[in-house]
Amino acid sequence: MTDSAATATPSIDTDAVVIGAGPAGLFQAFQLGLQGLNAHLVDALPHAGGQCAQLYGDKPIYDVPGIPVCTGRELVDLLLRQLAPIPVQWHLGSQVQALESLADGRFLLTTSAGVQLRTRSVFIAAGVGAFVPRTLKIDGLQAHLGRQLHYHPADVAVAPNEHIVIHGGDEDAVAAALRCAQEHPTARITLLHRRDVFQAAPELLAQLQALRATGRIAVVAAQINAIEEQDGQLAALLLTDPQGAPQRLALDQLWVYLGISPRLGPIADWGLAMERKQLQVDAATFSTNLPGIYAVGDINTYAGKRRLILCAFHEATLAAFAAAEWLSGDKVALQYTTTSARLHAILGVEHPGDSD
Amino acid sequence: MTDSAATATPSIDTDAVVIGAGPAGLFQAFQLGLQGLNAHLVDALPHAGGQCAQLYGDKPIYDVPGIPVCTGRELVDLLLRQLAPIPVQWHLGSQVQALESLADGRFLLTTSAGVQLRTRSVFIAAGVGAFVPRTLKIDGLQAHLGRQLHYHPADVAVAPNEHIVIHGGDEDAVAAALRCAQEHPTARITLLHRRDVFQAAPELLAQLQALRATGRIAVVAAQINAIEEQDGQLAALLLTDPQGAPQRLALDQLWVYLGISPRLGPIADWGLAMERKQLQVDAATFSTNLPGIYAVGDINTYAGKRRLILCAFHEATLAAFAAAEWLSGDKVALQYTTTSARLHAILGVEHPGDSD
Repeated sequence: MTDSAATATPSIDTDAVVIGAGPAGLFQAFQLGLQGLNAHLVDALPHAGGQCAQLYGDKPIYDVPGIPVCTGRELVDLLLRQLAPIPVQWHLGSQVQALESLADGRFLLTTSAGVQLRTRSVFIAAGVGAFVPRTLKIDGLQAHLGRQLHYHPADVAVAPNEHIVIHGGDEDAVAAALRCAQEHPTARITLLHRRDVFQAAPELLAQLQALRATGRIAVVAAQINAIEEQDGQLAALLLTDPQGAPQRLALDQLWVYLGISPRLGPIADWGLAMERKQLQVDAATFSTNLPGIYAVGDINTYAGKRRLILCAFHEATLAAFAAAEWLSGDKVALQYTTTSARLHAILGVEHPGDSD
Repeated sequence: MTDSAATATPSIDTDAVVIGAGPAGLFQAFQLGLQGLNAHLVDALPHAGGQCAQLYGDKPIYDVPGIPVCTGRELVDLLLRQLAPIPVQWHLGSQVQALESLADGRFLLTTSAGVQLRTRSVFIAAGVGAFVPRTLKIDGLQAHLGRQLHYHPADVAVAPNEHIVIHGGDEDAVAAALRCAQEHPTARITLLHRRDVFQAAPELLAQLQALRATGRIAVVAAQINAIEEQDGQLAALLLTDPQGAPQRLALDQLWVYLGISPRLGPIADWGLAMERKQLQVDAATFSTNLPGIYAVGDINTYAGKRRLILCAFHEATLAAFAAAEWLSGDKVALQYTTTSARLHAILGVEHPGDSD
């Protein structure tokens, strides 16, 4: 973290930036809304929900208070409905890459999409880290990212007769090969995995088998050792097959599906006090050691900490109160959503007796 | 709090007693259940829900995480459904009156129903106190409690031709007079209030007016100054009417409806560290200053405390973990309801892969 005026670059001013749109981040934005603070929500995934949607989207959770059972996805949907009245700015598919302290006490955050957010407070609700695709570590490969190299691509242009190599052995890789075969009739498709064994639902494996039989999809079992470039283009992969023999696989595009895993990323470099991989916070305010930066949910640690969603809700609420007091320089009295006309106006609900 | 062997009285052994069956107490019992600890739940009200049901049973709450809107009553119903798989012993309509430390480190609690609970841990989730009827303070009156004097009675025997005086000016008093007129055709009924003004729904006031017109219910506007006794019985009330004139009202029973208000009660005398009317707790464990006694929800205080239901859920959860560690003398690892076969067995849900 460095001091910088950073006034030359156009940036968006806001009260708060919430990093992470899992349950903790969503409820953080809700509680900031109740405090009258406007927030930008940033998440590496292209959708809200974080771990909760990613790791147990269709699995039941039984200990969210007042919700006898719900799946991760259902919980996220409920939190999004609760957040709906609060005007939140979304930055999905983006990661916060840099944080700078400004001279006036604010922070300048820069996202991977190049957006600059100038904010009075930061709430790190990043869980176990940003969910990002695991990268393939081959010398010189990364230079082709976004052109011939794509990680877990959702929608990439494919020219006629291109040779697409899809690398991976799990369901995401198999599904991508099948989808590519369907969407790009002229493409040549190779599914490349270190062994000729794939982990996927039986119906997908059956479809793959059928397309292998017709030659529509080729399967190559081999390790990638290096790349071959020509005129700055990725020309071929240099492989070793299971028998130890070298092979060369010419290609136009490489789509990599090695799984999505959480990474703490640049947050680790912001000068925040940590204990193992967790951010240390004060349990009265959920402030980190840097005033104005709070941490809630699985990413923080304090005496008694348990990594449960319901604890994150409490942490986000106390952090919102603490930030509201810190930003206003004054005590913030508790108001109840049941009775407060101010909160009813924020929530967009009308109650008899809410005259102004 | 005194030391006592108290082995002569038969008592029920348990891991935990939860005092208060509002949202905090209900979720406390649920979390104790997940820890494999069995609990007795005690509440002064004849039903679960506490403040939440009593003060805003039909009013909307907007800030329970994942529940965009629910009434107090609906929240209580959801928490009861969540608690259903956990075998909890209920003591409704009872108050804990005495707490003694036993020589073996356990506690002996005695309820107003005379039940003795010998427990390894106590969780005070008593909110703003037990909701008890406000009493009428007249010399000598209290001696008639349970015989001729009843506070907010639900079901009292009435002999033929008795004169029932119902004291109070709000909807509960008016409704009791109307109900009495219907259920006890031979009873003489007087509704006594300091002024001839009653606060109730228009339809109830209209019914009262109709029964006054026929003489079925008499209304007396006066203050009660004293009682008159005869052979140890309550014989009459000595009144002063609004003009200052003395009156005498003979009666057989006095039903008092002066409202229900929260009282901390005997908990204040147990030697627990307090700050104003709140119990001081350690925010890592929610333990009070007495090991084995925890406090959660509106009754506790700690740095950053906000009296919100969602905070009580967090407190109850950490208190359950802390108690489980204290009682076992060992670390308790976090398990997730989504994946733990042990928790699935406790919750009575079957999951593929939960083999034992």
